[in-house]
Amino acid sequence: MRNPNCSGELKPGEKLDELQRNGYVIIQDKERFCFGMDAVLLSGFARVKDGGTVLDMGTGTGIIPILLEAKTGASHLTGLEIQADSADMARRSVALNGLEEKIDIVQGDIREAAGLFPAASFDVVTCNPPYMAGGHGLTNPEAPKAIARHEVKCTFEDVAAQAAGLLKPGGNFFLVHRPFRLAEIMVTLTRYKLEPKRMRLVYPFADKEPNMVLLEANRGGRSRMTVERPLIVYREPGIYTDEIYDIYGY
Amino acid sequence: MRNPNCSGELKPGEKLDELQRNGYVIIQDKERFCFGMDAVLLSGFARVKDGGTVLDMGTGTGIIPILLEAKTGASHLTGLEIQADSADMARRSVALNGLEEKIDIVQGDIREAAGLFPAASFDVVTCNPPYMAGGHGLTNPEAPKAIARHEVKCTFEDVAAQAAGLLKPGGNFFLVHRPFRLAEIMVTLTRYKLEPKRMRLVYPFADKEPNMVLLEANRGGRSRMTVERPLIVYREPGIYTDEIYDIYGY
Repeated sequence: MRNPNCSGELKPGEKLDELQRNGYVIIQDKERFCFGMDAVLLSGFARVKDGGTVLDMGTGTGIIPILLEAKTGASHLTGLEIQADSADMARRSVALNGLEEKIDIVQGDIREAAGLFPAASFDVVTCNPPYMAGGHGLTNPEAPKAIARHEVKCTFEDVAAQAAGLLKPGGNFFLVHRPFRLAEIMVTLTRYKLEPKRMRLVYPFADKEPNMVLLEANRGGRSRMTVERPLIVYREPGIYTDEIYDIYGY
Repeated sequence: MRNPNCSGELKPGEKLDELQRNGYVIIQDKERFCFGMDAVLLSGFARVKDGGTVLDMGTGTGIIPILLEAKTGASHLTGLEIQADSADMARRSVALNGLEEKIDIVQGDIREAAGLFPAASFDVVTCNPPYMAGGHGLTNPEAPKAIARHEVKCTFEDVAAQAAGLLKPGGNFFLVHRPFRLAEIMVTLTRYKLEPKRMRLVYPFADKEPNMVLLEANRGGRSRMTVERPLIVYREPGIYTDEIYDIYGY
């Protein structure tokens, strides 16, 4: 159960945001990184069978495991996060929501995930990875926002390699990324026997280029995929489509 | 110039259809294969620089070179077709439109294209290939429609390999295919150094799954692509969107 005295858990600079699911809340810090629509859409796109286990790689403040706990019948969820401060915030959010039995937050490096968890042990792996290749030219590559947005700590290939090793045969990998990297993503997934099976493009408006792509890949699957109907974000400027309101839970 | 006495050129079973470009016509035979919206959309998606040369692999009755001659500044176009009857119809259509100087129709096998044309000699290669993998279970795999729709005479890998060999460095390959094969297509293109650079999904209705994908790949290009706004076919049942009417030239 949620701790009613939750505001006492906040550190300077942190705020508590309501999620629109089960009364859950999340601790965030504007100076670090706040979750975006991509994490919410990924939690709406991912499918977890009842009793399934989930690993979220690069969980940040834990938004994806917390939303998936609310939305699916997962039996257990793990969030892996390299940054100590983010992992600490995620752990406190889990506690505030009374989810310590369901969600573990592990501080660690995605590139070393194979040493942190048993091989082939998860039904589902999710990831909202850094979108920008490389960290060249960044003023402060160790800044929390840089690590969340740029491939400073791991590349997409690292993510795919670790997901492939940690998924059970037949398990599913769900990710969100930018469309400009779609070809590279499909080639990399396929190289690690993560076969793209389902894709949905997210278009901000019905007549604009997509700015996100949601993908489901199956470990060891056959080559045949479904591209779903477009996911349109705005009906008109400032007003979401009904589907976006549904995913957010309003 | 178009031959006004064109109907005299038709063989039994053939019909003459008007294209909505330059007064051009095309000879088709319903019992064999008539071009579909995919060929028209591919001719609208492909970009040919002024003076560029084009090879259309598997040209059928020549619809793509004839439309591209009307729509672009290509200096010369070649259509390669394995079926003698289709190649003959294409040649007669070219003559009816007075395009013998601009369009060559070559009868031959895509798999042997490297022996038919000089290596690295085209600015653009186009292909509307058979969509269905394999020809297993076909009652009559030598039927013209079977050859057009199923990979009886060549696989997608054959098409990609030949396109890569015949394109100049930096040249572009334009194709239309089914979305269910998208991952395999991207992997195959990349293997032959045909880097996917531009993609557009064709959705029959704004709230339905796409049933075609248009792709542009660049020989030797860097890995970064653009996914364009959705191409919606029907505004309402039976009524095309304005963009489709534009592409058809109405």
